[in-house]
Amino acid sequence: MASLKEIQEYVIELFDTQNFEKQPSMLYTPVQYTMSLGGKRLRPMLLMLATDMFGFDYKQTDNAAIAIELAHNFTLLHDDIMDESPLRRGKPTVYQKFGTDKAILSGDVMLAKAYEYLLKCDAKKNQQLVKTLNSVLIQVMEGQAYDMDFEQRNDVTQKEYITMISLKTSVLLAAALKMGAILADARAEDMNALSEFGLFLGIAFQLQDDILDCWSDLNEFGKVVGSDVVDNKKTILFLTAVEKANDTDATELTNWYLEKTNDFQKKKQRVIELFEKYNVKSDVEQLINNYTNKALESLDKIGVSEDKKENLRQLAKSLINRKK
Amino acid sequence: MASLKEIQEYVIELFDTQNFEKQPSMLYTPVQYTMSLGGKRLRPMLLMLATDMFGFDYKQTDNAAIAIELAHNFTLLHDDIMDESPLRRGKPTVYQKFGTDKAILSGDVMLAKAYEYLLKCDAKKNQQLVKTLNSVLIQVMEGQAYDMDFEQRNDVTQKEYITMISLKTSVLLAAALKMGAILADARAEDMNALSEFGLFLGIAFQLQDDILDCWSDLNEFGKVVGSDVVDNKKTILFLTAVEKANDTDATELTNWYLEKTNDFQKKKQRVIELFEKYNVKSDVEQLINNYTNKALESLDKIGVSEDKKENLRQLAKSLINRKK
Repeated sequence: MASLKEIQEYVIELFDTQNFEKQPSMLYTPVQYTMSLGGKRLRPMLLMLATDMFGFDYKQTDNAAIAIELAHNFTLLHDDIMDESPLRRGKPTVYQKFGTDKAILSGDVMLAKAYEYLLKCDAKKNQQLVKTLNSVLIQVMEGQAYDMDFEQRNDVTQKEYITMISLKTSVLLAAALKMGAILADARAEDMNALSEFGLFLGIAFQLQDDILDCWSDLNEFGKVVGSDVVDNKKTILFLTAVEKANDTDATELTNWYLEKTNDFQKKKQRVIELFEKYNVKSDVEQLINNYTNKALESLDKIGVSEDKKENLRQLAKSLINRKK
Repeated sequence: MASLKEIQEYVIELFDTQNFEKQPSMLYTPVQYTMSLGGKRLRPMLLMLATDMFGFDYKQTDNAAIAIELAHNFTLLHDDIMDESPLRRGKPTVYQKFGTDKAILSGDVMLAKAYEYLLKCDAKKNQQLVKTLNSVLIQVMEGQAYDMDFEQRNDVTQKEYITMISLKTSVLLAAALKMGAILADARAEDMNALSEFGLFLGIAFQLQDDILDCWSDLNEFGKVVGSDVVDNKKTILFLTAVEKANDTDATELTNWYLEKTNDFQKKKQRVIELFEKYNVKSDVEQLINNYTNKALESLDKIGVSEDKKENLRQLAKSLINRKK
């Protein structure tokens, strides 16, 4: 069995040496730009950690790992257009750098390329892999639609929010793990427990992202701090704050989120002050702990020896304590 | 064997009775809107005509037929954003009606749904079907990139143009036929000849589209007449005209295509006048005839009796003589 660090280095190297550049360059230059921006490479990591846990050689899963990273980056590329995000990983987003049209088309081709890489995997596992990726991608898109819908709504519940982030984030993490398990010929019950681990981990991961949006350093975070607030994203912080606040503060918070203001510095400052007044950060941290524990309980159910689960356990903990 | 009319009616009925509406409606209402706009349903028709020609029951191919129509409509939806097309089939395009963000996301989900429908087909043929669709979708996207690139360039050749429309249009028609052949267990050599038929037919079809853009009736055509001219699309008409024109007229034509003008009525009128001065329509009609003949020669090579090819032959001829 490999160490977490070995697999991490292998994944980084894998993407550092890929070249997606080809003709027409109008289409593929933005793909290469996106794929070379780095990032955590979390989904390929999860895929390889899963195969390794079940005793399969993770170095045989390059195509599936590239497929899931392409699929993930496709969603980011299109989301950044819809969310008008200027920065991703500290660099201009594709639509900012190349324009909306090229961002749409390059995103499309990344999705198609994801299937192409997946179709290069073991023919016997092809169908199951494609089905897995495809069905979660539909869920991710549904999650993005709910996310956009919530920006317009004023009655979003915490439960709805958790469902939305499960769709938008968790299912793809779960799919990465499941695809690793498929490639490793894992038993169905182990595959299910591992997917469950991914789902809970994904929720914890996204809640941590919500915290980082408000309290982190731009240079470390790579995205604009407070952009969820500016974009009226009713994250868990907002929903918890509105629930805990007195009537005056709840009304003020709700009003800030009614429309997009140009004075976003003031908005960010005041909203975060209110978040801090009601100490919502520690509530959310508690929630993150709960979901992390659920994830680890799911990991416990998998029928391999405990030492083999150590890498995923360690990764889960590091994700929850991350600064970017 | 069924008649062309029977299969046509079956296809129309198939799409008239599909309902793509589900939650979240923000995502699926535009899908239903697009899929219910009608259109020729040419790709499902070709798929079913191919299965029928090889003696397989075309009524067993609904999922593949829906898949290819979804995939085609996904490309239209995103292309309409990039080309800023206001009308499609006589109705507002999705991005005009629902906004760019929803048009991007609904297009994405149509593509993913296309794979979903395809994955419902016979498991043994799954991989071949998905590979076929996926590889041509990448080509279609490359074709769209070249199309956008050509708008900026002033040295596009006829050969480059034919390559671009092959990618953007023909390969998907060829894939529809090939998928029908795959489902019907056709022999590899017949599959190849049929794909070739689709490729040549697609070129003839697109050249006819170029003619219709300039000389057709809005109510019949369903798109804005002359929009290729307004959008500086260097279609075969433009390329032929520039080649045939004297220096003064060639310069004038080239100048009209240098930038987008607001006085597009004058531009359309003057450009079409120049097309007519050099009689380019009849040149292009000759080219269409050549490609149609090549298509029919490819059809000849297929190892089924001549009467079984009659439907595809008839369809090919009707497409070339169409008014919309």
